[in-house]
Amino acid sequence: MTSLLHLDSSAHRSEESVSRQLTALFARTWRTAHGPAGYRYRDLAADPVPPLDSAYCSLGRRVERNGLVPPAGVDTLAESAAERREWSLTRPLVTELLAADTVLVGAPMYNYAVSASLKAWIDRVGFPGALTDPDTGEGLLRGTKVVVVSARGGAYGPGTPREGWDFQTPYLRAYFGEKGVAPQDLCFINAEMTMAELVPGLARFRSLAASSLAAARAEVIAAASGGGPAGGRSAGLGGRIEATAG
Amino acid sequence: MTSLLHLDSSAHRSEESVSRQLTALFARTWRTAHGPAGYRYRDLAADPVPPLDSAYCSLGRRVERNGLVPPAGVDTLAESAAERREWSLTRPLVTELLAADTVLVGAPMYNYAVSASLKAWIDRVGFPGALTDPDTGEGLLRGTKVVVVSARGGAYGPGTPREGWDFQTPYLRAYFGEKGVAPQDLCFINAEMTMAELVPGLARFRSLAASSLAAARAEVIAAASGGGPAGGRSAGLGGRIEATAG
Repeated sequence: MTSLLHLDSSAHRSEESVSRQLTALFARTWRTAHGPAGYRYRDLAADPVPPLDSAYCSLGRRVERNGLVPPAGVDTLAESAAERREWSLTRPLVTELLAADTVLVGAPMYNYAVSASLKAWIDRVGFPGALTDPDTGEGLLRGTKVVVVSARGGAYGPGTPREGWDFQTPYLRAYFGEKGVAPQDLCFINAEMTMAELVPGLARFRSLAASSLAAARAEVIAAASGGGPAGGRSAGLGGRIEATAG
Repeated sequence: MTSLLHLDSSAHRSEESVSRQLTALFARTWRTAHGPAGYRYRDLAADPVPPLDSAYCSLGRRVERNGLVPPAGVDTLAESAAERREWSLTRPLVTELLAADTVLVGAPMYNYAVSASLKAWIDRVGFPGALTDPDTGEGLLRGTKVVVVSARGGAYGPGTPREGWDFQTPYLRAYFGEKGVAPQDLCFINAEMTMAELVPGLARFRSLAASSLAAARAEVIAAASGGGPAGGRSAGLGGRIEATAG
């Protein structure tokens, strides 16, 4: 049985959230194709991952000092109730991530980067050694597919004026890559210019936003059906925005 | 009277936190030079900025629809108790930021980027229009000095194998730049290779880590005394690491 871990991180828990619309479409399509049994959902805004604290750091540092320690070994290194609690908050998230064949990440761009709620998850599952094979040092996500569904207020694709301002896609590419996800298993689907609908000064980009959303919906359906694009980067609105933004 | 807003974001609230050691040194030096009256401290780990929620987003979207609205105007746009509460959580942080002549940001690198707790602050003070002059569209931090004190487990400076993995310094440069901070008013002080002390496999970098910390301490004292480097990027360990990492 194949499995999907669906994460949402938009603070806007409503139909207005474009990333939530798109991940919900992915999830519906996936469940239709694969059945409901392997589906798991986590809302990082509704149910925030607890912030790291000193005990997490102390335990993490002790693990680092001991070289790479498998999860079972971390329990024995914990020296206080606070450290055991931190690990009990962390390990289920790691286990859940490692159990997924596909991870769907709803990732709105906030201030040019991932949301704080997604970063809280990234930081917690990034516990020292938790996603690393203790024998080989390789990332444990080497068989995992990751689909990042991103919604951005503007356009950040190649050729746009804001190209250098995307600290989200290259970041997630680096992060998941370092955890072992193969380039061909990492897919980005971006809906761009979502602010055009809202901001009077961006009204001229509304048709571009609509095209971007329609393209993202088609990519989501294809990816969730199992025959979708993989390893690609969404083409985005690059050329079109460049031609019209002046 | 000059003023300093000191932010810490390391989850490790102990003497072991290098970023906290360095920001504390900055704060002591600054208070000696300028007196204690203008000093303000906020610990983003001990006292986390509340995560954004739907009401924040709804209010933010309404503000966007109305063009640029000054803070006083946001109150009148809030339509529910939840929205008023979100703005009451946001406005004091914005006011505090705008009141500071210098902002000191303790920013450990977590998973190649800023910590979730710092991102939570960035996302909240980034409320639509809150840091933008409604008349000119310019960022309101144009007279503000920002000193980012960063601690990183490895080395990410130019010429290091991990140079492309720094999603922290370029990000904060872009973010604060967009809010109006002039390039010459934005200073980065980096202590690198902090993991060398901890991880057996990095033991050969311990003297580099010690040099980096000593250099960072000197830069902190100079910057806090008022005669320090500004607008520079910390030279980092680039050449030295490149020469020894093979």
